[in-house]
Amino acid sequence: MEATKSSNETTIHISESKSARSKVVATPPPLPAGGWKRGVAIFDFILRLCGITAALAATTTMGTTDQTLPFFTQFFQFQASYDDLPAFSFFVVGNAIASGYLVLSLPFSIVGIVRPHAVGVRLLLLIFDTVMVALTMASAAAAAAIVYLAHNGNSNTNWVAICQQFNDFCQRVSGAVVASFIAAVIFMFLVVFSAVALRN
Amino acid sequence: MEATKSSNETTIHISESKSARSKVVATPPPLPAGGWKRGVAIFDFILRLCGITAALAATTTMGTTDQTLPFFTQFFQFQASYDDLPAFSFFVVGNAIASGYLVLSLPFSIVGIVRPHAVGVRLLLLIFDTVMVALTMASAAAAAAIVYLAHNGNSNTNWVAICQQFNDFCQRVSGAVVASFIAAVIFMFLVVFSAVALRN
Repeated sequence: MEATKSSNETTIHISESKSARSKVVATPPPLPAGGWKRGVAIFDFILRLCGITAALAATTTMGTTDQTLPFFTQFFQFQASYDDLPAFSFFVVGNAIASGYLVLSLPFSIVGIVRPHAVGVRLLLLIFDTVMVALTMASAAAAAAIVYLAHNGNSNTNWVAICQQFNDFCQRVSGAVVASFIAAVIFMFLVVFSAVALRN
Repeated sequence: MEATKSSNETTIHISESKSARSKVVATPPPLPAGGWKRGVAIFDFILRLCGITAALAATTTMGTTDQTLPFFTQFFQFQASYDDLPAFSFFVVGNAIASGYLVLSLPFSIVGIVRPHAVGVRLLLLIFDTVMVALTMASAAAAAAIVYLAHNGNSNTNWVAICQQFNDFCQRVSGAVVASFIAAVIFMFLVVFSAVALRN
């Protein structure tokens, strides 16, 4: 009686251990997924370098633009620089912050290459990248609205176009705005790539 | 002899099944993780409803604002509406697109609640939410730059403030800009929550 009871228990345990083993095998192995995740991380690093270039170009172009007209009246000389308009000052500050953040984020991006499965770093970068999308887009759009006004003026509000006089100034400012839009698009791609890398 | 052999086998199998069981326990069970993911998905749905309110409020406030001054000259009547300024037209279009997208995204958000582990839907929403962060932020910032100019004017460019005359118009437009900024912040939270839900 004891022998049959123990053999019964044996079969039960065999079936249990088999089902347990099949469960363990069913979970996918985590290591091979690191391949494309590392690729995404390297692309992330390269995109950040491009972003630094664009944001720094936008900041310096806007910050150093300064045009003085060759004629002047008795009272003052006609001069245009970025700090004449609050939107342009905001543009310089916003893009400078974006450049600084991108430089500071490079070590974290390298951590993402070395350890493709580190979730915390990637999530942190994604959150700050999202904030930077908003910041660079806001500064670029505000400056673009003012540049459009400077180029075309507005007859309804009696705001005259100033780009006939300050042609060189307007051209450089337009270039800076385009660079900032490029930086914003790069940040959007960084957010999406981080999300793809977070996916299991 | 047979009885002892079978009892030996029994002990071996018991120890095997125990080690297999401990392995199964070590891997986290997949089902309970759906709890907080479902919570995030429900919060995502509520945030989308708030976003619809904000974006629709911004669109309608800006779109219906129209002020005619009680005095007029021989040639024309002084009137201000959103389509006098291109930045305000862009604002209306941008926020209308954001509202429409949010309404269309509600079914996908519900799919996220029903199936918290569906990765594709969440990634799709994250990508479009990122684009909408950029769109709403750009429209809000461009309109804010113009509203600031309308309130304060700019002496360097000889652009006079128009809000002394069009006081009611400026107040309503400022409200619309604030609503659009709120919509942009909601989109930023949606992106971050989607990323958190994508995390394993």
